[in-house]
Amino acid sequence: MPPVITAFAQSPDRGRGLARDMPVRWALEEVGQPYEVELVSFAEMKQPVYRTLQPFGQIPTYREGELALFESGAIVLYIAQGHAGLLPNDADGRARAVMWMFAALSTIEPPIMDRSMALILERQEIWHEQRLRLLEDRIRTRLADLSARLGDAEWLDGAFSAGDLMMIQVLRRLAGSELLEGDRNLLAYVARGEARPAFQRAFAAQLAVFNDSAGN
Amino acid sequence: MPPVITAFAQSPDRGRGLARDMPVRWALEEVGQPYEVELVSFAEMKQPVYRTLQPFGQIPTYREGELALFESGAIVLYIAQGHAGLLPNDADGRARAVMWMFAALSTIEPPIMDRSMALILERQEIWHEQRLRLLEDRIRTRLADLSARLGDAEWLDGAFSAGDLMMIQVLRRLAGSELLEGDRNLLAYVARGEARPAFQRAFAAQLAVFNDSAGN
Repeated sequence: MPPVITAFAQSPDRGRGLARDMPVRWALEEVGQPYEVELVSFAEMKQPVYRTLQPFGQIPTYREGELALFESGAIVLYIAQGHAGLLPNDADGRARAVMWMFAALSTIEPPIMDRSMALILERQEIWHEQRLRLLEDRIRTRLADLSARLGDAEWLDGAFSAGDLMMIQVLRRLAGSELLEGDRNLLAYVARGEARPAFQRAFAAQLAVFNDSAGN
Repeated sequence: MPPVITAFAQSPDRGRGLARDMPVRWALEEVGQPYEVELVSFAEMKQPVYRTLQPFGQIPTYREGELALFESGAIVLYIAQGHAGLLPNDADGRARAVMWMFAALSTIEPPIMDRSMALILERQEIWHEQRLRLLEDRIRTRLADLSARLGDAEWLDGAFSAGDLMMIQVLRRLAGSELLEGDRNLLAYVARGEARPAFQRAFAAQLAVFNDSAGN
């Protein structure tokens, strides 16, 4: 039995691959693990039966045999640990790849997600512009530090890893803003990630769900 | 040679054990691993030499032989994987403990950290109260879901794990606010964590640094 993940029946990102099933799909594609997808509506996600699987009423979840997981970071790490291709073979290199996963989710993503939420939820507030500038300054500081560390390297630490996968997925949320334009090496880094065949298969799969749900 | 971590020479939390060296100290105490601490000032953290260790100019870092790590979540996980005591023995249980670490840092902490930052940085803004209420609503939603999942259990999933350690450390940031008062089982959960001898040793160690720096 292949693992089963949950994803939005109608993703609010309109098929841009920003929902949190995307990194899980990408990881599964990188390691060549077939999977099944169960689509859930917003209403279903808030029901008690779904909350036994995901206490916060979110996607994605991951089921494989008796194991049920949530949190995209934890799912990607579980997939990476169980297959070749997303973590180095040496113990120190593995620890550093995991470090970059946490850096993506704990250090880089919070101000980026705050900006996304502010753009959705706070547009009508009188303080929206002021707060947006403050958030964008925080994001620029983080991106400048990340850019300095990446330098001319292709990936963050040797070969492509689960750390790069999570970092690139987090940075993708800035697509279309000017924030990434200031750090050309980060733009190229994201483009290298998106050019990977596994990324493209994952992206196409989530886009197909959106197009189906939109009746296209 | 014991591992060496970095911590604030003068912690802005005034010894309350909210800085990110705290979960690392706690994990090291739980597994009985002696460690050394190198104190760094804010000015030192922003220097190029420190940034080779921590690209974002933050504490903590962790060095052990040739390995250098940052990100408290990654360090705690590395310690947990290398010693008995912070992860279950079975593979599924280990995956779920790691899941709770990610839930603590990716799902529970962001709105809590936003509130802490708003209380520090936005007190003078005319919209401060309005925004604070919005953040506190987001926090309450997360806490209610977490409380429902914890129920009457002692820890999140069987025995105390690195997942509980990170979750309790994240919830501790709400100490003194009313936000935790609504979920009595979460209050008791945090208290159980803080009552652990390993927590108390870690807390005392970071408090001693603060008291020394304050000239007490």
